[in-house]
Amino acid sequence: MIAEFSIVPLGTGESLSKSVAEVIRLVDESGLSYRTNPMGTVVEGDWDEVMGLIKKCHDEALKQAPRVTSRINIDVRPAKPAGRMEAKLDAIEAVLDRKIEK
Amino acid sequence: MIAEFSIVPLGTGESLSKSVAEVIRLVDESGLSYRTNPMGTVVEGDWDEVMGLIKKCHDEALKQAPRVTSRINIDVRPAKPAGRMEAKLDAIEAVLDRKIEK
Amino acid sequence: MIAEFSIVPLGTGESLSKSVAEVIRLVDESGLSYRTNPMGTVVEGDWDEVMGLIKKCHDEALKQAPRVTSRINIDVRPAKPAGRMEAKLDAIEAVLDRKIEK
Amino acid sequence: MIAEFSIVPLGTGESLSKSVAEVIRLVDESGLSYRTNPMGTVVEGDWDEVMGLIKKCHDEALKQAPRVTSRINIDVRPAKPAGRMEAKLDAIEAVLDRKIEK
Repeated sequence: MIAEFSIVPLGTGESLSKSVAEVIRLVDESGLSYRTNPMGTVVEGDWDEVMGLIKKCHDEALKQAPRVTSRINIDVRPAKPAGRMEAKLDAIEAVLDRKIEK
Repeated sequence: MIAEFSIVPLGTGESLSKSVAEVIRLVDESGLSYRTNPMGTVVEGDWDEVMGLIKKCHDEALKQAPRVTSRINIDVRPAKPAGRMEAKLDAIEAVLDRKIEK
Repeated sequence: MIAEFSIVPLGTGESLSKSVAEVIRLVDESGLSYRTNPMGTVVEGDWDEVMGLIKKCHDEALKQAPRVTSRINIDVRPAKPAGRMEAKLDAIEAVLDRKIEK
Repeated sequence: MIAEFSIVPLGTGESLSKSVAEVIRLVDESGLSYRTNPMGTVVEGDWDEVMGLIKKCHDEALKQAPRVTSRINIDVRPAKPAGRMEAKLDAIEAVLDRKIEK
């Protein structure tokens, strides 16, 4: 499955870059395939891998902040092989017949 | 923690009421405290309870549909006691000094 | 259309009840049909009404906070008559053949 | 402001690549700065530019599908200059002291 997630600590000021960097450090250590964009991080793996990782990120955020909110968006399509993060973008480029901004 | 979630199967037509009813059946059986609104269901429990339930709903949806998308929004505030679904609405009513539409 | 939205100011502490109360005050003044749940507010209206209202709420939040994040989830089904917030919940209850927790 | 959005038509099958390609065509024509990721498209502009564009994408999707759902996530921080899509990623890389997967 593919999941995009974003973790926002509340009560620690308006800058989130340190908190996001910590999330990416954990994502990177997980060994899962991922891509970070300006609004969240997209990871690919099975449910337990992905949710285990997001829980770990959540727990880390809770060490720094009294309240943590997150959003997770999931896309599961069992008939498709792994590598869907790239395949989805490739499919769009195939329709448009050109490269897109990623 | 409190989580709102919504599970949308793709490839099974535009009506979602049967699929949503199945989700609510599973939520109800879970024993967790919950409330359904026109755009999703809000549940309260610890991470493993809530995510275990959402996974079960997801798996059920995948029996009917070739692709399933979900969104989950989480709000964790460890210092607050259980019963936050009601407490959050009460706090808003206290500020407004009147009942709100729920 | 139906839209659920949630506006979260950053940099003003972890309590959001005053900010949410202000949103609900504006929603209430808009005259649009709405329902508040523990994770957001669902409103019904046409695109310009709903988005105009959310923009107003956003602008209000920006008077108090240096950074504001929001999430909006939209569901549009033109063939259905107005009153979909109730109709969606009724359709689920019809499938389950019982009342649900709202 | 920065907004990530994703538009999902219902009732037209489980493949979304044509619909997403059409969205990206409109985003590209808008002239706004944007980046597409496997779960959505991030654009930068002022409220009316961004929301006008999303409405246009929505209207286009409604020509093809009987029901359309969307999610929009917004991040506004008025004190920061334009170019925040890049600046946010740069800030994370500065904390981590290395390049990240984008």
